Amino acid sequence: MKLEMDREELKRLLLYGSQKGIDEIIEDIHPADILDVLHEIEAVDVIKILHRIPEWLIAEVIDEEDDEEKYALLVNFSEKKQKNILKEMSSDEIADLLGSLDEIESKRILDNMPVEEAEDVKQLLTYAPDTAGGIMATEYISIKENMTVKETLKYLQKVAPNAESAYYLYVVDEDEKLKGVVSLREIVVSPFDTIIIDVLNSNVISVHHDMDQEEVAHRFEKYGFLTMPVINDEKQMLGIVTVDDIIDVLRDETTEDIHRLGGVGESEKVNGTLFESVRSRLPWLFVNLLTAMLASATVSMFEGTISKVVILATFMPIVAGMGGNAGTQTLTIVVRGLALGELNFENAKKIFFKEIGVGLTNGLSVGICISIIGGLWSGKPVFGLVIGLAMILNMTVATTAGFLVPLTLKKLKIDPALASAVFVTTATDVLGFFFFLGLATVFIQYLI
Amino acid sequence: MKLEMDREELKRLLLYGSQKGIDEIIEDIHPADILDVLHEIEAVDVIKILHRIPEWLIAEVIDEEDDEEKYALLVNFSEKKQKNILKEMSSDEIADLLGSLDEIESKRILDNMPVEEAEDVKQLLTYAPDTAGGIMATEYISIKENMTVKETLKYLQKVAPNAESAYYLYVVDEDEKLKGVVSLREIVVSPFDTIIIDVLNSNVISVHHDMDQEEVAHRFEKYGFLTMPVINDEKQMLGIVTVDDIIDVLRDETTEDIHRLGGVGESEKVNGTLFESVRSRLPWLFVNLLTAMLASATVSMFEGTISKVVILATFMPIVAGMGGNAGTQTLTIVVRGLALGELNFENAKKIFFKEIGVGLTNGLSVGICISIIGGLWSGKPVFGLVIGLAMILNMTVATTAGFLVPLTLKKLKIDPALASAVFVTTATDVLGFFFFLGLATVFIQYLI
Repeated sequence: MKLEMDREELKRLLLYGSQKGIDEIIEDIHPADILDVLHEIEAVDVIKILHRIPEWLIAEVIDEEDDEEKYALLVNFSEKKQKNILKEMSSDEIADLLGSLDEIESKRILDNMPVEEAEDVKQLLTYAPDTAGGIMATEYISIKENMTVKETLKYLQKVAPNAESAYYLYVVDEDEKLKGVVSLREIVVSPFDTIIIDVLNSNVISVHHDMDQEEVAHRFEKYGFLTMPVINDEKQMLGIVTVDDIIDVLRDETTEDIHRLGGVGESEKVNGTLFESVRSRLPWLFVNLLTAMLASATVSMFEGTISKVVILATFMPIVAGMGGNAGTQTLTIVVRGLALGELNFENAKKIFFKEIGVGLTNGLSVGICISIIGGLWSGKPVFGLVIGLAMILNMTVATTAGFLVPLTLKKLKIDPALASAVFVTTATDVLGFFFFLGLATVFIQYLI
Repeated sequence: MKLEMDREELKRLLLYGSQKGIDEIIEDIHPADILDVLHEIEAVDVIKILHRIPEWLIAEVIDEEDDEEKYALLVNFSEKKQKNILKEMSSDEIADLLGSLDEIESKRILDNMPVEEAEDVKQLLTYAPDTAGGIMATEYISIKENMTVKETLKYLQKVAPNAESAYYLYVVDEDEKLKGVVSLREIVVSPFDTIIIDVLNSNVISVHHDMDQEEVAHRFEKYGFLTMPVINDEKQMLGIVTVDDIIDVLRDETTEDIHRLGGVGESEKVNGTLFESVRSRLPWLFVNLLTAMLASATVSMFEGTISKVVILATFMPIVAGMGGNAGTQTLTIVVRGLALGELNFENAKKIFFKEIGVGLTNGLSVGICISIIGGLWSGKPVFGLVIGLAMILNMTVATTAGFLVPLTLKKLKIDPALASAVFVTTATDVLGFFFFLGLATVFIQYLI
């Protein structure tokens, strides 16, 4: 027995199967799998398949597609069919589609929609895209507290909600103010004559429409909900955020953080074009060139010393490299801690002192080790002392900078992942060379 | 009107409110909020609160707590009460609890459980923790295809499933083999006399119990499900994975990647102890010390050249630093692309040539720029040529290494995030210095 249809089988069915064969199975096929097939085949076959599947499914396939590609799927159809497809899409899905279009295309689509739904979409487009309002759907089930379980079930059978909005029913008063929540499970396991007010949870955890999507995601992580209601200042219910959108938010936000920490554009794609990659990375390389020149300028101040004790040049990569590594370590922990909400301005002081302690401890360990190596390599104990001392100083500076830089950026409301690495490595390069070559200059008489 | 109770209010209620007051509201309080209160107060108050809330809620609070801390909550109670609390916990929650205990403690807990449930837990403990089997719950609703909607609803009222397992009902045959799935929503909107076989989806997307949890997470991302069934080789249903566990998986896996890219232990906590931080980071610093010494050894080969042209020391940080940055950029894109499944062995070749192109393009841009700066700074055009050429070579090597190293590790089934950075920066340091100082040695007569 085979549970899942594989992609080749699905492709054959959609392209060459009878219409009857398709109709029989199509309800059981996930739109994401159909989209996979469409991505693999020629344009002419894409159109063939799109015309063999029902309108509700086309709407779902469009919803699965990347925002920038959605429109290309839709325009394969006549005006009338486009209208039907749009009817099957929820307001937030249409808002996502419009987000990537120019004004003329947007207007054409809005004109093709019933007035009331077009208003919903326009309203959604007023929220910033990375807030609760920007990711919410306006399709949700709201009921009144004096309804019975039986009335609720009848109502559900009438409106036949889509899957993602059916699992929690929100109880609102006559002013649309949120009063409580009942889960579908609760409805199903309660006797028919139960009044909603007896089973509702009135301590509803909700989010305001301008809450940042990352904070919304933290709430989902904390509470494990499937959907969460979005409210305005008057506590009126505006929509719901669903957990599958939150998974996308989490993925995008962490990709952004990882990219920024690595000095590449936040939205660069591994399978993008050469030009996109160059545009995403070259600006950062030039920023780094500038900061590297600061390090060079520091070294150039000590050219006299280096020309007398050339082994200093040999050990330069070690001092700067180790400082950079120690700084990156602290930076990594701090940026991730901020993103997860585990580090905040309340516990920052305690963690700061810990980081200085880590810098000193690791600096001492590495410093003693490198001072022995340096002493033996050069044959001069004082050289060992110089590089060991420089290492301890630089690694302590590194952890301090690795901590203070991202927290300062956070305080200034700049993404701490964005520019931290540049500042931290500049600090460790410049000060690392300064400590090492400066100490060498002080003790030059013992090094020649 | 206030929707949510704030933490101070909740703390006061739990500590000083009447038992009646607590009982009235307690069903509406989320266990995560109670855990927040427990984390803020003294041990004696923790015990006081734990004895004022019902056993089912204690079980939920324990489930919210970090695995290593769960046991400390449980042992506050008498043997008998512990037994009752364990009864309220699902098998996967108990398995999580046991995961952090020694053998004697584990045995004591298993002995305190009904034999059948203890067997379930023992079975769960046999799956690797980072597989579908390791994160699944064995509590799920299974029905037969010849049941009616009404019978199904009655069955649900009888078993009163917990919220997370109720949203999909899995249809199995007499051998427990998975045959299809029906959503609770479908049950609710269908007439009572509908036979399950008429509404079930037989194209069930399932996961095998030994599938890596990261791959399971990709399936959730792709399909947007709330739960997914876990099966064995015989297609028998073993359990379900729920989306809230997947959110935890995604968070932990990305934290692991970010930490590994930054050279810190995968499970270091920003609010951990100094000792934990040192233990997490010092090994990596010593690995880096070894690789930095390779770079130093390369430089030391050219001490003769540097002593004659000391400006080479000044420009050393630029060549190595820029190569390191370019390598880190490619590495970041590649590691994240592998984690998201956007880069695989199928499209790797195409992306490889793009990366070499990016290296050459960025290398040329930065190389021309630095060659002008170097020429002006030193007053010697050949010096500009040397550093410019070294830059182009090193940045091309950097993107090549940044691409090949993580892909090779992936092929060897080692986490590409783990050791890539060390290899890549070693390559860019050693080769960067070799190109720069080597070229300078070749052209030495024009540089003096």
